[in-house]
Amino acid sequence: MTLDQGAGASHAPALRYHRIGSFEPELGGSLQAVTLAYETWGELNDAADNAVLLVHALTGDSHAAGGSSEGYRRGGWWDPMVGPGLAVDTEEYFVVCSNVLGGCSGSTGPASAEPGTRRPYGMRFPVVTIRDMVRAQRRLLDALGVRKLALVAGGSIGGQQALEWAVEFPDFVEKAVPVAATGALGPQGVGMSEIGRRAIMADPDWRGGDYYSTERRPDRGLAIARMAGMMTYQSAAGQWERFGRRPAGRPALHPEFGGRFEIESYLHYQGSELSGRFDANSYLYLSRAMDLYDVASGYESDEEAYSRIEAEVLFVGITSDWLFPAAEVWDAAEKARAAGAQAHYAEIDTKSGHDAFLKDWKELTEAVEPFISKNHKS
Amino acid sequence: MTLDQGAGASHAPALRYHRIGSFEPELGGSLQAVTLAYETWGELNDAADNAVLLVHALTGDSHAAGGSSEGYRRGGWWDPMVGPGLAVDTEEYFVVCSNVLGGCSGSTGPASAEPGTRRPYGMRFPVVTIRDMVRAQRRLLDALGVRKLALVAGGSIGGQQALEWAVEFPDFVEKAVPVAATGALGPQGVGMSEIGRRAIMADPDWRGGDYYSTERRPDRGLAIARMAGMMTYQSAAGQWERFGRRPAGRPALHPEFGGRFEIESYLHYQGSELSGRFDANSYLYLSRAMDLYDVASGYESDEEAYSRIEAEVLFVGITSDWLFPAAEVWDAAEKARAAGAQAHYAEIDTKSGHDAFLKDWKELTEAVEPFISKNHKS
Repeated sequence: MTLDQGAGASHAPALRYHRIGSFEPELGGSLQAVTLAYETWGELNDAADNAVLLVHALTGDSHAAGGSSEGYRRGGWWDPMVGPGLAVDTEEYFVVCSNVLGGCSGSTGPASAEPGTRRPYGMRFPVVTIRDMVRAQRRLLDALGVRKLALVAGGSIGGQQALEWAVEFPDFVEKAVPVAATGALGPQGVGMSEIGRRAIMADPDWRGGDYYSTERRPDRGLAIARMAGMMTYQSAAGQWERFGRRPAGRPALHPEFGGRFEIESYLHYQGSELSGRFDANSYLYLSRAMDLYDVASGYESDEEAYSRIEAEVLFVGITSDWLFPAAEVWDAAEKARAAGAQAHYAEIDTKSGHDAFLKDWKELTEAVEPFISKNHKS
Repeated sequence: MTLDQGAGASHAPALRYHRIGSFEPELGGSLQAVTLAYETWGELNDAADNAVLLVHALTGDSHAAGGSSEGYRRGGWWDPMVGPGLAVDTEEYFVVCSNVLGGCSGSTGPASAEPGTRRPYGMRFPVVTIRDMVRAQRRLLDALGVRKLALVAGGSIGGQQALEWAVEFPDFVEKAVPVAATGALGPQGVGMSEIGRRAIMADPDWRGGDYYSTERRPDRGLAIARMAGMMTYQSAAGQWERFGRRPAGRPALHPEFGGRFEIESYLHYQGSELSGRFDANSYLYLSRAMDLYDVASGYESDEEAYSRIEAEVLFVGITSDWLFPAAEVWDAAEKARAAGAQAHYAEIDTKSGHDAFLKDWKELTEAVEPFISKNHKS
């Protein structure tokens, strides 16, 4: 067991690193030395069964809570949900959040140096899956002395992991809250994802993934990928309300072409913002893991997979989500219930789209807090 | 009046060219010599009032009907709708379809040589609008001796033009059928469109639009734009049915990355197919015209614009359309009716999405044929 404080700690005081060692991804290849970056809040109890694992979204990181700091000016991604007296009460729970395997915020990913070569992996990094991410997290939790997860929760790719946790480690999880996620992403989501990957790979600065030693990064491609991603995170109704057909208020980041709409300016900004903080290869690998996730993978059927679940599961759908439509989240809950799992479904009624799990705090709290506090031992 | 048979005629026997002369686009700039490529079917009657104008979609052309030929292996884009005894009966009507201003299938567009320079315009081509396209078409119809349009019909950007025809030239149009179009595209559509434009402009082979004299075209960028477009032309339900999460059956056009889904292979194929037949700059200009179209432009309000209409208008919505959602098409019909226009609404119930106007022939015929044949003089 190795629990380190790594090089990034100077920027993010609470960030820790754990070397889980070698790792064999389920689809092949191998990783000799894997590190997970993580943060914790609260204290593990003597029974070591009050742990909560929070799982971040595609471009998120381990800073789920703790407010803003030098390394995290935007604050924690679930700040209004995690803290004393909040839905995830840090006076009750020992809360853990780690950057996923394949990520670029402290954990081993394609931008990490390949042992022996000292060169970043680039596309030599093996394809990793949602299950791989969960298995890596399990090793971290074991190292932290956690004996049982009172709760695992996350949205989107984090929701896929929350679900997979309940399937992969049935006796380790008491409650799971997958938000805006299903057992398998639909073809529209895969298609949008592929548009983004294609834009990254078409960027001449991508160089087959080996851009780390060059001056330029595939920023334009990553920005387009982010633009495509943002479209799937919002709803048509929400965009009408927020942007409508208004002309851009802020300066255009790109040459004008018959004027500029606010929605375009917004997308350009989001694209540029992500390029400044995220690794394009990580985007490829993590988005691919989202596409590839199928809860039934390795089992005979969805039913067999869901029948493994011992945890009580709350599936949370978002009415205006088109990446993981509420009807499909509901369907996943139904399948799990039919397979014998204690599965519940709650719905957040909002125009915010997929992103509601990162902004509609009141509705989110109302949806998940009763489930989390139900049967609480303390 | 100049009605020519141009250079492209050897490949498409029925294609004709008409020089409408100089043209002043409404947003500025000027074009010294504009040509429109067009085809016709049927005969103009003595009263010159049996003309039908069909208006093509974004990447369409003047070959609305007439089946497949050397230049049009895929046939006419409305073949099942146009012909003797069909919804648009060529024994009754004189049917005209022209390639739009700004297009690349015979009409003057950014790939055309700029008079005086003999260089293609590229991005020096002025921004053109839906209204410009309609005004250019009017000049063609005048040259053909048409005194009145018995009908103007089209889908998507063609639907925008059908609507604009009724607004811009009220006393020239008897019936208009805008399909899958509204008075103004929503921010989600504009956003998806911008993703495509950004991909084209990020392609190093685009060269600021001046790629015509080079060996390479911005094919990768245009392919990504097409992929984004295709996503908006289909529905989630339709894609589940058609592609699901099945692995690709045909060879991958790009390197594998953890497998390949059928939806990806399909998108790659569509992207590659368009790159082989369409000009990237035209894609920029035409998609921009779609974004910019606002029926109220130049008027005080939507109401003032719609109140100009003298034609009887049938708005056709498609239940699974997310580029121009049925609810927004219905809303446009309501606004037109409230403003005093004879506006009707019909809906095509299908999983085909926006593209239904180019494939769901039975449903489309049922929706529009009664409207077209109603009060027919013959």
